[in-house]
Amino acid sequence: MSRQTTPLGRPRDPELDEKLMTAALLEYAQLGWGAFTMQGVARRAGVGKSALYLRWANKEQLLLDSVESVALTLRVNVDTGSLTGDLTALATALLEHFLDPIGWATLRITIDVTADFTDLQPFQQRIVRSLRTAAAGAFTRAVERGEMSADTAHEPLIESLFGAVLMHTLSRTQDERDHARAYPGEHVGPLVDVIVRSARPTKK
Amino acid sequence: MSRQTTPLGRPRDPELDEKLMTAALLEYAQLGWGAFTMQGVARRAGVGKSALYLRWANKEQLLLDSVESVALTLRVNVDTGSLTGDLTALATALLEHFLDPIGWATLRITIDVTADFTDLQPFQQRIVRSLRTAAAGAFTRAVERGEMSADTAHEPLIESLFGAVLMHTLSRTQDERDHARAYPGEHVGPLVDVIVRSARPTKK
Repeated sequence: MSRQTTPLGRPRDPELDEKLMTAALLEYAQLGWGAFTMQGVARRAGVGKSALYLRWANKEQLLLDSVESVALTLRVNVDTGSLTGDLTALATALLEHFLDPIGWATLRITIDVTADFTDLQPFQQRIVRSLRTAAAGAFTRAVERGEMSADTAHEPLIESLFGAVLMHTLSRTQDERDHARAYPGEHVGPLVDVIVRSARPTKK
Repeated sequence: MSRQTTPLGRPRDPELDEKLMTAALLEYAQLGWGAFTMQGVARRAGVGKSALYLRWANKEQLLLDSVESVALTLRVNVDTGSLTGDLTALATALLEHFLDPIGWATLRITIDVTADFTDLQPFQQRIVRSLRTAAAGAFTRAVERGEMSADTAHEPLIESLFGAVLMHTLSRTQDERDHARAYPGEHVGPLVDVIVRSARPTKK
């Protein structure tokens, strides 16, 4: 996993970096911002606090890197040859993201940032940008194939599809979320259909 | 604001009840579950802890009542005569809900419940039920008017519209959210269009 950030000046150990960032996201997922501390992350990872502080100056930096490392894995841009296929790949990746404790933690961080009680605005922009980039290609190809007219706005379709997957995850019980993990296609299929039907060109 | 719950045995004071529940939601919005305490709520409301404990046995009960009192205000079921009009009323109410610190707190509680680190499942069910009930009437009337075919599934449309409004709120900066507060119609319009286009009957 490549990251652009530079740790604070000790030789890189990518495995340990990733272990610490995972611990940070899980700690956040459990406690939220109000009770999130470097001490807690160190305890969860089974390392001393100094191992954290050698890499990250403070908890904001640690969270920023951790979210970035997850956002990178969300860049799905598959050309399956149809709008339904492309959006299914995207929606499935997003569903799996929300069903994963790590992915869920990044959502909670976004929620906390939106509430404006923390000063972590870059998180929000990075996650949103990653989602938009992943969808833009699918719509561009759909216009080229005539599945969608060129003057259809992308942004509301993107918000509807990603929002639907999020709401689907939110409104399901634990058992239903286990089912979604095993059969993601059954869960995203009807949500993708809403978007494909909405995007189809109107017959004159 | 009427509630079904019975306080623990002192004469009702609806204004104080509501003040305490508002303080609870704001405290939660700021700190999340990990740092939420009865003590903190009492301090925020400017009362002694005993005023809280006379009404609610523990913080779970307090949160449950607080969320319920907000969920009641979300039951919008307006018959405007068109699917676009009905969904615009609904989506606007939901947008305003998410833009309000109190509404945002109930969303965060749902998110925390979904992460399964708290034992507050009833929250989730109540909020979701309130949203679904509000949308079902709009779709039923649309089918009667021929704006939508009877065999179109409601659930994916509901998830798409509510999810879109949520995602729209999440992906906007503070300035953009202020704009949405002043001109909600401009923000929900394109999202409602996605759903209305998707629901329209296919020409044979």
